[in-house]
Amino acid sequence: MVNAPTVPVSFSLKTPEGDERDRRVCDTCGFIDYVNPRIVAGVVAYSGDRILLCRRAIEPRKGYWTLPAGFMEQGESVEEGARREAREEAMAEVEFETLLAVYSIPRISQVQLMYRARLINQPSPGPESSEVLLAGWDEIPWLDLAFPSVKWALEAFRETKGRTGFAPYGNPPGTEALTR
Amino acid sequence: MVNAPTVPVSFSLKTPEGDERDRRVCDTCGFIDYVNPRIVAGVVAYSGDRILLCRRAIEPRKGYWTLPAGFMEQGESVEEGARREAREEAMAEVEFETLLAVYSIPRISQVQLMYRARLINQPSPGPESSEVLLAGWDEIPWLDLAFPSVKWALEAFRETKGRTGFAPYGNPPGTEALTR
Repeated sequence: MVNAPTVPVSFSLKTPEGDERDRRVCDTCGFIDYVNPRIVAGVVAYSGDRILLCRRAIEPRKGYWTLPAGFMEQGESVEEGARREAREEAMAEVEFETLLAVYSIPRISQVQLMYRARLINQPSPGPESSEVLLAGWDEIPWLDLAFPSVKWALEAFRETKGRTGFAPYGNPPGTEALTR
Repeated sequence: MVNAPTVPVSFSLKTPEGDERDRRVCDTCGFIDYVNPRIVAGVVAYSGDRILLCRRAIEPRKGYWTLPAGFMEQGESVEEGARREAREEAMAEVEFETLLAVYSIPRISQVQLMYRARLINQPSPGPESSEVLLAGWDEIPWLDLAFPSVKWALEAFRETKGRTGFAPYGNPPGTEALTR
């Protein structure tokens, strides 16, 4: 292990050779900090007519309701990421049915892949959730959803319930202002 | 701009508070280098019975044939990334038809989203390609494809040609050894 330097690390914006964009390049060692969009993997998990929602115990949007979803980690598949998030946020075990939606949120450089999955145990709050809820359609706290894409995924779920063999939904028309 | 430090930057593996995994943490400033899987966006672009392939002019797999595809950049949607890659690698303009496949390659922490698209101009090699080819099915250089997922996407394309409204393909069964 190299000893810790005792000066601040500094990066400058430069366009590396052969590249077309400015990247953050370390002024000391030339390390190029390529930053790419991050993948959020999640599930609309249901049991009968009820859908699993989690109340966020952490920022952003603490106190608001969301679907189990989070950033994919290195070394896992998208489905494994979604399964891990269901466990971490709602102690939920799920069986995947289909890829429900692929949302692009360029404003925050996220791509969200949401699966429909059957819930096969009794969920309970994980460390990032203060509550979990198995909500019938009319019991969903629509005014207290954490993110626009939670609503989109719930609506995609309702429109495709029981079906497989469909193309995943994308960003709904007219939502550009929320994503750019 | 902070002046450049003149010592090497050093990172240590540590588990940040509230996290469950080791991350690279800067010994100087505490910067946490979260690394997440990267998204590759690409197209199987076709014109009539021919499919657009590019011969790689850069490593890895220089000299081998691939589909236009590459890492998504910040601030773009998945489709925009795939469109940009088609332009950069093959000067190709495309019309998207459907999401053909979502491949997870945990070994290299990639998720690949491949679209089927109609080619609407005459392609030519961009800076990262030495040649482009509009190949009939039997003219595809099967033994000289750059990556396993190129073959998977070509096969998914052939199985779904002319169809829309299907669930995107995933990693083919039996390919674990190539992705883990």
